[in-house]
Amino acid sequence: MENKNISMAVIKRMPRYYRYLGDLLDNDILKISSKDLAQKMGITASQIRQDFNNFGSFGQQGYGYDVRLLYHEIKRIIGIDKVYSIIIIGAGNIGQALANYQNFKRRGFNIIAMFDKNPKLIGELIGKLEVLDIETLPKFLEDNSVDIAVLSIPKLEAEKVSETIISGGVKGIWNFSPVDIKAPEGVIVESVPLTDSLMTLSYRLSEESILERINLHK
Amino acid sequence: MENKNISMAVIKRMPRYYRYLGDLLDNDILKISSKDLAQKMGITASQIRQDFNNFGSFGQQGYGYDVRLLYHEIKRIIGIDKVYSIIIIGAGNIGQALANYQNFKRRGFNIIAMFDKNPKLIGELIGKLEVLDIETLPKFLEDNSVDIAVLSIPKLEAEKVSETIISGGVKGIWNFSPVDIKAPEGVIVESVPLTDSLMTLSYRLSEESILERINLHK
Repeated sequence: MENKNISMAVIKRMPRYYRYLGDLLDNDILKISSKDLAQKMGITASQIRQDFNNFGSFGQQGYGYDVRLLYHEIKRIIGIDKVYSIIIIGAGNIGQALANYQNFKRRGFNIIAMFDKNPKLIGELIGKLEVLDIETLPKFLEDNSVDIAVLSIPKLEAEKVSETIISGGVKGIWNFSPVDIKAPEGVIVESVPLTDSLMTLSYRLSEESILERINLHK
Repeated sequence: MENKNISMAVIKRMPRYYRYLGDLLDNDILKISSKDLAQKMGITASQIRQDFNNFGSFGQQGYGYDVRLLYHEIKRIIGIDKVYSIIIIGAGNIGQALANYQNFKRRGFNIIAMFDKNPKLIGELIGKLEVLDIETLPKFLEDNSVDIAVLSIPKLEAEKVSETIISGGVKGIWNFSPVDIKAPEGVIVESVPLTDSLMTLSYRLSEESILERINLHK
């Protein structure tokens, strides 16, 4: 395999390419030039060519890209031609929303269990999943193959639980908790910092309103 | 105001500083050196000094930073000493999770309304909020001051609705929909690309398993 030294920046753009190419297919557009794709995506054509060169050559000079081929190659590259087994830890609002999110299953992410420590939630059904007692998590990890654990629990618990997960052999953590998880080599953590994101928005809003006031006084 | 030319990278680090300083205060730690803070956060001390210099001088040579002062300054800088009024568009799983998320209110984000186009959801109570008919959104925006609109609706609707929001004068969009919103100058969009994030995780996992297999054969 040639995709060993690809930068995080390129990796992070792949899902976006995948999304745009899927849209093209939905609209029966089967070939596209790097220029047209670039325009749609608001990036440069040379960026696209560079990115795709990382994975081998998909385009033909003067013809453009074969959308279907590229779509399936990126799908393979991203790894979503596989099926991943997922557990959700924390059956609160975010955990429940994710458990009910139909798109994940369609994309090969299979949620096999949900855990919480709250006695009011344990035993409840979320969609088709019963919420299991978090105390049973180590045993569950011994008995089942889990690729990804979703962490949607409060900060104070997230650190302890992430240790349990990692020592249980889980290789991927999708982290919604407001902590920075220290993972050993070989364990991948992808964080979705919700409150950080909202704070970034509010910072940029307050800055924008400052700029506006400055302009008004010009 | 001096905070006009601060890079997005610095801005994006601010909420994380805020989070760590809040943890220090929770543990009654009232001063900290840039070195100790750096170690906690896994970044360099010079990075911290550079970042904080953007906003003026908070540290004293040989003394370290006054945690409480720094915390409140960053709070002011991020803009969360203000109260923002928020509407949520899309009362599905993610929308409901956000509506029920207690932390937002505590941080000065006040959800004033929720909208959906699904007749089964319109009129329902989510927490204390009644779901309003999306058809009434333009009128609502005329009658109310809205700082931030949360978009948690399917792709096909997100584009049209974002136009309604923007022409209704909303300056901030917190986007959970899988679309890239084209916003005019003065409108801030902060996206939380959930499926993109999960795909990045799966890509990194599949790459990791490839590397592992390569190492096994060494």
